[in-house]
Amino acid sequence: MCGLFGISNHPEASRMAYFGLYAQQHRGQESAGIAAHDETGIHAHTGMGLVPDVFDEAALNRLTGSAAIGHVRYSTTGSSALRNAQPLVVHIRGLNLALAHNGNLTNAAALRRELEEQGSIFQTNSDSETFVHLIAHGMKSAASLEEAIRAACARVQGAYSLVILAEGRLIAIRDPHGFHPLALGRAEKSWVVASETCALDLLEAEYIRDIDPGEMLIISGDNLNSQKLDGAGSVPIRQCIFELVYFARPDSRIFGEEVYTCRKNMGLELAKEAPSEAQLTMPFPDSGIYAAIGYSQGTGIPYEHALIRNHYVGRTFIQPSQGMRSFGVRVKLNPVRSVISGRHICVIDDSVVRGTTMRTRVGKLREHGAKIVDARISCPPVRFPCFYGVNFSTAEELTAARHPLSELPRLLNLDSLCYLSIEGLLRTVKEPDHYCLACFNGSYPTPVPSCSGCKACGQA
Amino acid sequence: MCGLFGISNHPEASRMAYFGLYAQQHRGQESAGIAAHDETGIHAHTGMGLVPDVFDEAALNRLTGSAAIGHVRYSTTGSSALRNAQPLVVHIRGLNLALAHNGNLTNAAALRRELEEQGSIFQTNSDSETFVHLIAHGMKSAASLEEAIRAACARVQGAYSLVILAEGRLIAIRDPHGFHPLALGRAEKSWVVASETCALDLLEAEYIRDIDPGEMLIISGDNLNSQKLDGAGSVPIRQCIFELVYFARPDSRIFGEEVYTCRKNMGLELAKEAPSEAQLTMPFPDSGIYAAIGYSQGTGIPYEHALIRNHYVGRTFIQPSQGMRSFGVRVKLNPVRSVISGRHICVIDDSVVRGTTMRTRVGKLREHGAKIVDARISCPPVRFPCFYGVNFSTAEELTAARHPLSELPRLLNLDSLCYLSIEGLLRTVKEPDHYCLACFNGSYPTPVPSCSGCKACGQA
Amino acid sequence: MCGLFGISNHPEASRMAYFGLYAQQHRGQESAGIAAHDETGIHAHTGMGLVPDVFDEAALNRLTGSAAIGHVRYSTTGSSALRNAQPLVVHIRGLNLALAHNGNLTNAAALRRELEEQGSIFQTNSDSETFVHLIAHGMKSAASLEEAIRAACARVQGAYSLVILAEGRLIAIRDPHGFHPLALGRAEKSWVVASETCALDLLEAEYIRDIDPGEMLIISGDNLNSQKLDGAGSVPIRQCIFELVYFARPDSRIFGEEVYTCRKNMGLELAKEAPSEAQLTMPFPDSGIYAAIGYSQGTGIPYEHALIRNHYVGRTFIQPSQGMRSFGVRVKLNPVRSVISGRHICVIDDSVVRGTTMRTRVGKLREHGAKIVDARISCPPVRFPCFYGVNFSTAEELTAARHPLSELPRLLNLDSLCYLSIEGLLRTVKEPDHYCLACFNGSYPTPVPSCSGCKACGQA
Amino acid sequence: MCGLFGISNHPEASRMAYFGLYAQQHRGQESAGIAAHDETGIHAHTGMGLVPDVFDEAALNRLTGSAAIGHVRYSTTGSSALRNAQPLVVHIRGLNLALAHNGNLTNAAALRRELEEQGSIFQTNSDSETFVHLIAHGMKSAASLEEAIRAACARVQGAYSLVILAEGRLIAIRDPHGFHPLALGRAEKSWVVASETCALDLLEAEYIRDIDPGEMLIISGDNLNSQKLDGAGSVPIRQCIFELVYFARPDSRIFGEEVYTCRKNMGLELAKEAPSEAQLTMPFPDSGIYAAIGYSQGTGIPYEHALIRNHYVGRTFIQPSQGMRSFGVRVKLNPVRSVISGRHICVIDDSVVRGTTMRTRVGKLREHGAKIVDARISCPPVRFPCFYGVNFSTAEELTAARHPLSELPRLLNLDSLCYLSIEGLLRTVKEPDHYCLACFNGSYPTPVPSCSGCKACGQA
Repeated sequence: MCGLFGISNHPEASRMAYFGLYAQQHRGQESAGIAAHDETGIHAHTGMGLVPDVFDEAALNRLTGSAAIGHVRYSTTGSSALRNAQPLVVHIRGLNLALAHNGNLTNAAALRRELEEQGSIFQTNSDSETFVHLIAHGMKSAASLEEAIRAACARVQGAYSLVILAEGRLIAIRDPHGFHPLALGRAEKSWVVASETCALDLLEAEYIRDIDPGEMLIISGDNLNSQKLDGAGSVPIRQCIFELVYFARPDSRIFGEEVYTCRKNMGLELAKEAPSEAQLTMPFPDSGIYAAIGYSQGTGIPYEHALIRNHYVGRTFIQPSQGMRSFGVRVKLNPVRSVISGRHICVIDDSVVRGTTMRTRVGKLREHGAKIVDARISCPPVRFPCFYGVNFSTAEELTAARHPLSELPRLLNLDSLCYLSIEGLLRTVKEPDHYCLACFNGSYPTPVPSCSGCKACGQA
Repeated sequence: MCGLFGISNHPEASRMAYFGLYAQQHRGQESAGIAAHDETGIHAHTGMGLVPDVFDEAALNRLTGSAAIGHVRYSTTGSSALRNAQPLVVHIRGLNLALAHNGNLTNAAALRRELEEQGSIFQTNSDSETFVHLIAHGMKSAASLEEAIRAACARVQGAYSLVILAEGRLIAIRDPHGFHPLALGRAEKSWVVASETCALDLLEAEYIRDIDPGEMLIISGDNLNSQKLDGAGSVPIRQCIFELVYFARPDSRIFGEEVYTCRKNMGLELAKEAPSEAQLTMPFPDSGIYAAIGYSQGTGIPYEHALIRNHYVGRTFIQPSQGMRSFGVRVKLNPVRSVISGRHICVIDDSVVRGTTMRTRVGKLREHGAKIVDARISCPPVRFPCFYGVNFSTAEELTAARHPLSELPRLLNLDSLCYLSIEGLLRTVKEPDHYCLACFNGSYPTPVPSCSGCKACGQA
Repeated sequence: MCGLFGISNHPEASRMAYFGLYAQQHRGQESAGIAAHDETGIHAHTGMGLVPDVFDEAALNRLTGSAAIGHVRYSTTGSSALRNAQPLVVHIRGLNLALAHNGNLTNAAALRRELEEQGSIFQTNSDSETFVHLIAHGMKSAASLEEAIRAACARVQGAYSLVILAEGRLIAIRDPHGFHPLALGRAEKSWVVASETCALDLLEAEYIRDIDPGEMLIISGDNLNSQKLDGAGSVPIRQCIFELVYFARPDSRIFGEEVYTCRKNMGLELAKEAPSEAQLTMPFPDSGIYAAIGYSQGTGIPYEHALIRNHYVGRTFIQPSQGMRSFGVRVKLNPVRSVISGRHICVIDDSVVRGTTMRTRVGKLREHGAKIVDARISCPPVRFPCFYGVNFSTAEELTAARHPLSELPRLLNLDSLCYLSIEGLLRTVKEPDHYCLACFNGSYPTPVPSCSGCKACGQA
Repeated sequence: MCGLFGISNHPEASRMAYFGLYAQQHRGQESAGIAAHDETGIHAHTGMGLVPDVFDEAALNRLTGSAAIGHVRYSTTGSSALRNAQPLVVHIRGLNLALAHNGNLTNAAALRRELEEQGSIFQTNSDSETFVHLIAHGMKSAASLEEAIRAACARVQGAYSLVILAEGRLIAIRDPHGFHPLALGRAEKSWVVASETCALDLLEAEYIRDIDPGEMLIISGDNLNSQKLDGAGSVPIRQCIFELVYFARPDSRIFGEEVYTCRKNMGLELAKEAPSEAQLTMPFPDSGIYAAIGYSQGTGIPYEHALIRNHYVGRTFIQPSQGMRSFGVRVKLNPVRSVISGRHICVIDDSVVRGTTMRTRVGKLREHGAKIVDARISCPPVRFPCFYGVNFSTAEELTAARHPLSELPRLLNLDSLCYLSIEGLLRTVKEPDHYCLACFNGSYPTPVPSCSGCKACGQA
């Protein structure tokens, strides 16, 4: 997953982009970048790590100009990761263009082979670079940059929210399926686009509307020009339900839904589908807070916050001593013994991300004296890989799902385990037909790459 | 406030100290330090910043030996702050001694003048150094190190939990009033002492008991020898109630109380003393979670978690743009509009730390559409400075308290404001007579420095 | 100017490349990079700054494989400098290729326009990228990679020494004019190529021979295959004489010449052409040591080393106080008053790099009491810009040269100033017809870009 | 060895101190520190490493005030090295005092025991701290700070140049033997003191005179007050001849001698005492330049500079490959084969610092084809440890000297080896009776510690 930001017509555009990315840091911690446009062209700065690690005052001050786009990228591995940091900045026949992409294309490999046959050289491993080569080749025949961009979009399949900076214009695009969110806001004289509205809140920008699935919005200074991509309106809308379940910040509004309310409603649905006799219910860990509140209100089981987070846990640690077992779990979260000991507990999580982690944490509850431990998960089991941009910690996730559900409680050291049903999940959204459920039911909205044991799909 | 740790008889004593401090990072973020004892003497490493910033593998590996003590120090100001980092390590007549101190002495200035008259040179501004000079002078006549330490303790007044490393022994001391906590634990063959039990949990050490007020516990290898300080048992026990209200981690057990339960009970008492007609209650911010859960259960008002924290907020920022008002508040916490808008809300906090921050946050709720905002505070108003080690953000705190309570709602932009009463607060603890309440009622357990407009007391 | 290195058939190829670049750090301090080839493809690491700043053990350890190339780049400016760091690594139709380039092309702009018309996207500002696009396009019709490379070389004009890594082979190329040096060496079972032999010395590799002008040497494991580029043997050899005068390390052997001996001979020639009545002669500063030794031996004037260098001068300074004049000169070099005072001095430099610096330093000698100051320069005046890779600190250099020589002594505060003649310079080399003298006489071996006031040529 | 600096009456005193230390970096690379005095007291900043690594603009800007002292410290080992960084800053009865020390005391251990008996606590291992404790105890009875300082000096034995900052005054002291240098200079309205005059040159301060042996100079604003220490004039002057031989910068003037001229004269004396039949003479390495010039002029043997230094060698390296022998020597210095091959060479060094290094370098010359290698050393063999502040790389140095001189050529792979005689060395100075020659002849000017196998003297 990644986060996008764009702004036009602002005297400190790159500074605004910095904060727009800062608010969306949860969408990607591997790398960050900003490109800004001034009269001398487009200047960019990218780096590995969190937004405040990548940018200092000096770096921002070099990014002058009144329009800017930014990108945060989700953690992957590989030594060439810096090359994959976005925005990509290229020179196409004297034209300066910067592009940032959220999502994954499903026909990138084929397009790349075709472009390389024509002499194109790829600098990165990322499918995002496909766009700029398609645009460059399109410019040979297209009447305008917009036309070349539209032609490029017509060639690709899969998920793409895009922000593009070129010729002083800011262009925001959402693919016809609308897989990932992109919102439009207004801050005084500036137009702002962002993957999530929490970025608009931080900048005190007013939320105007979402970019529509299949829309290309061209922002030039103060003016908006909306165009439709090929396929807009004719292909079904397939928004990523996992954005609502897990990925987006609870204070954001995406796909016309309030994320907080949606998650609380998942808890309420779960309360109906899978009640418990527990004496207390608790989020497990913090990401389950909103569903746990709903579950508590739906079942009447008292809510407790009995897993205490160490707020100072950072990314680098000294290695623990030999004898310190399950240290990685304990250092982040410590259960409150007096609340747990001797009780029947129902823990709420939004997904079983890692079976091993869940198992270790449940063991910790039992060591602290928990008598019975039920688990309720606020989404259905994830059974299929995602080709559209969600990095499930795949192996574990699917491993857990590939076991018969009936075996999972024993594997996870639980007394009971229930997942929310697909139907229950869809009851929490206004437009149940507009979502991609492929990770739950394998029904992919686009052709997907045939699988040959790649790491991405976990079917090795 | 500061945090202490000590361990004996462990092959990786300094590594254990690292994690013992890590778990207590909330007690001090300015500096950290560890001293370890091996056959060549005592070696120490201290630095500014968080524990993981101060220590790397190389630094820890140099701190060999089977006994170690550690210290984290609360943020203060001043360019010579590194000199004030602890443990202090000194050489007294061929004897190596390391000492770490939590608390504040009330007669430090007078003792320092006296020691300087005798030719002693102070390296730091901190009152903790007084101990080592008193011990050094005491060694001229004392029969043993223990006797010199006991004599030093007999000279000082105020709050002091101490861990000392000397001659291969680990010594843990709590002043006769018992102002600050200090716990004893057992990890396999090692004895462990720590300000809070959350450090024992992280090390999988078993909690044994508290160090008693007025106790000096001498740990030599596997043996424990407990002695009484002058005044032990004869002066009244006066434990810092603010440790329970605010300072300690909710998963710790101090003064014989479970902090989580205590704070939840404060919320239950507050529900009795100051109910509200609100449609929802929420912590404001996260530190109020436990009292808010109690308040919700006591009043039946639904609990919501409607202030979303940006988990990536660190310490260094790019400056926001000129036009970004109240940025400092927004960047950390964003209210969820859909939960708040049009509602009557009751926010719960553990103290009114900064009037200005409370006011700004309440304003933010109103901007997001809150109709009525009540506030309930889970402790009484703080009216008097603390001389025993709690750094109230003094001016604001007392400013708020110095206004008539009746004016505060207007000043803070609230519809109503209620504090928990002293009596209510004391109902949440088992031994109500054993607490220092000086910050609420001005009744100091020891003589305090006469005030001449110093920054410490805010009475300028 | 830049420095190149390549090695094949070595178990620690990238580590050898590190040291091969280290020895050639004088050829470029802006950025450094290494690309290595193992069975999974080509992996590269590049960064801004000196070789030891760019690489640590971890970075080197990721560059596994038995063949590697490296590059150091001369200091230029521009925020996108990191993108210009080499080796360039690209994917051409499933083929991984890394390339590093020393020199400047004179028809790069025209080729770039042509390639962009065909849809190629350039990632850097550097003319080196032209090669990879030409190769990529060549691959559409070429029978092999070698053929595509030869076709690319046939299209470009100007100076290029190249090292290329592809398909496990190491390819070393020197343009038909042979502008810049490239040497072949042997270290046990490995073949080594480097811009200068000082790199071979550090690795204890034996110098075998130079790569010939117009030669493409293909090294595959232990085998050498030598091919001729178009133009090899038919265009005149034009080696850069400034490599001998200034750029190369004095312990290197390039173009069949020992650099140390060459420079000393320049001093001997200068002694014949322009003797002096001085009481002592001294290098001014250290780069003039070798010519000064020759001048002293030729004239009999005693040699002194009377300008003392501060060996700890690094790149970052605190700003000096307001009143500290000519600080930048003094902090690096301090004249020895007792040697200089009251004396007639003859200073020797290899070029008048900056008139202002020379003037300031001479002033410093006069402040220290020098009575008469003659200067002798061991090369002719530089009057024309270089288009082949030598960055003269152009403006000053040419400014000095554009004044009548008769005015320069006054401008530089000298009593006399003599340059070595072109004829004298050529007497120090074995093959006087094989050198490019364009910077002295404007006779360029290739068509050069028509000048429109660009920074590169200084003719604004 | 260490370097001192002091300045009074300057608006940017600490900035001047920065550059004063910068110019004296060769006197100590382990740590650096500056203390400055303003109306709020004395503020100091110290750190490990080179001056530019220790200070940045922010650190300097905090050191406000018109008087400052600074210190650079020679490399030693030990984890507590930061504590030993100077200036020491202490509080003595409300008085702020900063002190920096160059030299070593010979009765420090006894004084320390005595002071500890009286209750003093030492923070460092360094003998310099003895001064501040003596001053603190002296203040009990002394009429003034000056009197307490004079009393402290009367108690200590050994070498001490001191700069002290207290009560707004700058105090400069040289012990009665005058072991180490200390110069007084004038920069506009400021008085400046520095170990070496090269620091005055950098600041464009005029050299006024040396601080005399046994002088205490009290500088208060613009006024100078000179006092005599006990013993001044009655104990013999014993200046460290090694400062002239090796330690001081060649552009400095110390002990009334020009260091450059002195060293060149050592070469001239060596030419008389130990001529050679060599075809060329060369410094081996750069530190021998001045003696080599003298030797060349005295013998008529041509001077060459045939060992080329890599100017980019820093302190951190990647580990070389397994097969890279004698890498440490080669990476710094590379001989020029064409100059050396087949020749009879005479190398000049100022001391045989490490037998192993000399041997390796000579081997390198032979590998490059040198036929005969003579060595001439511009000082006598070092046979006795120094107790006054010179860190000989003791073991090697004395090992070499303990072998019969007749065996050394074989051990060092030389054809001949000659040292300058003590008499010859003394002919290069104006006052031959005023020098300490203990390292050559064992005649110590003060009682020295009885030796019990300590590392310092190498007699284990």
